[in-house]
Amino acid sequence: MRMISLNVDLGERTYPILIGPNLLDDPEPLRRAIGGVSAVVVSNETVAPLYLERVQAHLAGLRHEAVVLPDGEAYKTLDILDPIYSALLKGRHDRHTTLIALGGGVIGDITGFAAATYQRGVNFVQIPTTLLAQVDSSVGGKTGVNHPFGKNMIGAFHQPRAVIIDTRTLDTLPDRELSAGIAEVIKYGLINDAPFFEWLERHMDDLLAREPAALSHAIERSCLNKARIVAADEREAGARALLNLGHTFGHAIETGMGYGQWLHGEAVACGMLMAATMSAELGWLPHTEVARLRTLLLRTHLPVTPPAELAPERFRALMAVDKKVIDGALRLVLLRAIGQALVTADFDPAALERTLATPAAA
Amino acid sequence: MRMISLNVDLGERTYPILIGPNLLDDPEPLRRAIGGVSAVVVSNETVAPLYLERVQAHLAGLRHEAVVLPDGEAYKTLDILDPIYSALLKGRHDRHTTLIALGGGVIGDITGFAAATYQRGVNFVQIPTTLLAQVDSSVGGKTGVNHPFGKNMIGAFHQPRAVIIDTRTLDTLPDRELSAGIAEVIKYGLINDAPFFEWLERHMDDLLAREPAALSHAIERSCLNKARIVAADEREAGARALLNLGHTFGHAIETGMGYGQWLHGEAVACGMLMAATMSAELGWLPHTEVARLRTLLLRTHLPVTPPAELAPERFRALMAVDKKVIDGALRLVLLRAIGQALVTADFDPAALERTLATPAAA
Repeated sequence: MRMISLNVDLGERTYPILIGPNLLDDPEPLRRAIGGVSAVVVSNETVAPLYLERVQAHLAGLRHEAVVLPDGEAYKTLDILDPIYSALLKGRHDRHTTLIALGGGVIGDITGFAAATYQRGVNFVQIPTTLLAQVDSSVGGKTGVNHPFGKNMIGAFHQPRAVIIDTRTLDTLPDRELSAGIAEVIKYGLINDAPFFEWLERHMDDLLAREPAALSHAIERSCLNKARIVAADEREAGARALLNLGHTFGHAIETGMGYGQWLHGEAVACGMLMAATMSAELGWLPHTEVARLRTLLLRTHLPVTPPAELAPERFRALMAVDKKVIDGALRLVLLRAIGQALVTADFDPAALERTLATPAAA
Repeated sequence: MRMISLNVDLGERTYPILIGPNLLDDPEPLRRAIGGVSAVVVSNETVAPLYLERVQAHLAGLRHEAVVLPDGEAYKTLDILDPIYSALLKGRHDRHTTLIALGGGVIGDITGFAAATYQRGVNFVQIPTTLLAQVDSSVGGKTGVNHPFGKNMIGAFHQPRAVIIDTRTLDTLPDRELSAGIAEVIKYGLINDAPFFEWLERHMDDLLAREPAALSHAIERSCLNKARIVAADEREAGARALLNLGHTFGHAIETGMGYGQWLHGEAVACGMLMAATMSAELGWLPHTEVARLRTLLLRTHLPVTPPAELAPERFRALMAVDKKVIDGALRLVLLRAIGQALVTADFDPAALERTLATPAAA
């Protein structure tokens, strides 16, 4: 199979996304993205035993070291940065060093934030090893950690020098995480790519069977969609907010249940269906389209009902601390059609109440 | 006295520096810099009793609150951010809120970093109340905190929306801090403004007597010099490094002695004289000019000899973790003349050894 190369077009900070099987066997993409003479690989206890040695082999001749963190969203806090900063400082890494994130979205977010803040910003490279990270969090420069009072509330925009996606790393991904990643893939179809949504309806079985060509196509199409939106609106002043489809509902679920109970993609899946349900409550989206989405999510083994533990009042309070609140008004990403999302604070709040009050309807 | 207004010219992020007596009595400059409907003032236990009420009076009609931190460089760590993040999240401040730093350089650096990283970046306003902060740290967008292994090693570039300098706040500044602030004022003369250095030689007694017109002129000229350098090189790719004159030596003193033992300006004063001494050792600067600087620093009651506790080997090790190291080579800001500094890694290391070995010579 060929290597696919896309660009995220951000002027002088433009960077490539490289997609293909066995890219980790090729030192070139990584070496090209490293400018200085030193590097630090950040990974976790699950991914490091699988891929760290192969990545470090490409760093021969550079001063380099590795930081291996515990695995899980529960560790994505300000405290987890200290081992990274300490390794950088003990190893006398200067502002021309490069941080390499080897792992899923949590490792990418943490490493990116460490890179954004070490000596006021050093280079970093993303090597995402989960589908979720490959199609979403590794692209676009959002980095950060959670706070006990809210998810991703501490962070920075910091673009990587390159994103290197070896599709073979998905061979070792647990089924549950594969499905969670597909939730974000489905999101791109919902936002503004109806033909891709239809492609997913036709090829979901291939994706779940990890058919290489299907995976590569889904990753490429997702990254293309995301790269286009990010290039148009890097700092989320407008269109980029569309990428949060399902996330305001989803973040409430993640925070309310405690980080790590629901996978991010699972919460987003449920959140997208809640956004679709609310859009139907508003009369904006036909109920048949909600059912179509629900069917696709169920085929992907994704949750379609919010947790019973979260009462509507609690759910609403959790949504109100979401970053999508502007000067007190809750803004949501809703749907006019499959493939046509919009960001708006101009909706009948009763529709939100009905959506929260009748989770079974979702 | 008139209000002086300068601009830091950074394209769409251009912002004003306003300088004058009793600016804190005028709500307009602050209200103009606040975009949204909410704000959080961050101050410390020393400054809050003096000025917090006056600042908060200008926030009438906005949702606002204050965070009062303990006073001192020793508290400038990652941990100090938590009360700020918690107040922001508990108060449901969204990404359109504004953080207001009311205090010295430590409060400005901490608040700026909190603003840079809360929800990936919110607005902030600097109201510096020490001379050091007014002429240096509040201008230019460097924000951050210290790490046990190095000073200012964690941070971000984040420009304020405005810098509001009420020169009357210097009335309450302890003598020692006034002198420490003048160290950075002298620095601008040394770097590239020989006429200003000569003005300082003529007016040092007026500055130490806190003569209002002399203070305003010194602050204006310092901010003009800094704003020009920052506008030319925001991210410190080149010329901005000149502003670090005395800082590589100075940071070694601060770190080696423990944060808070020496004031930053005191360490910079001693560091500038060490840089001048080393420049003379290299044959670049006449010894008479070193003596001229030494005399001016002594008149300002600033230290001219590094601490005896710091042996040369330890001093060198501390300098090697400085951010001015690029790919292993130590870069220093040295002097060709008073008013002519240069950044270079191209020097005879023996001159550095001699400078470190004979602190009495400094």
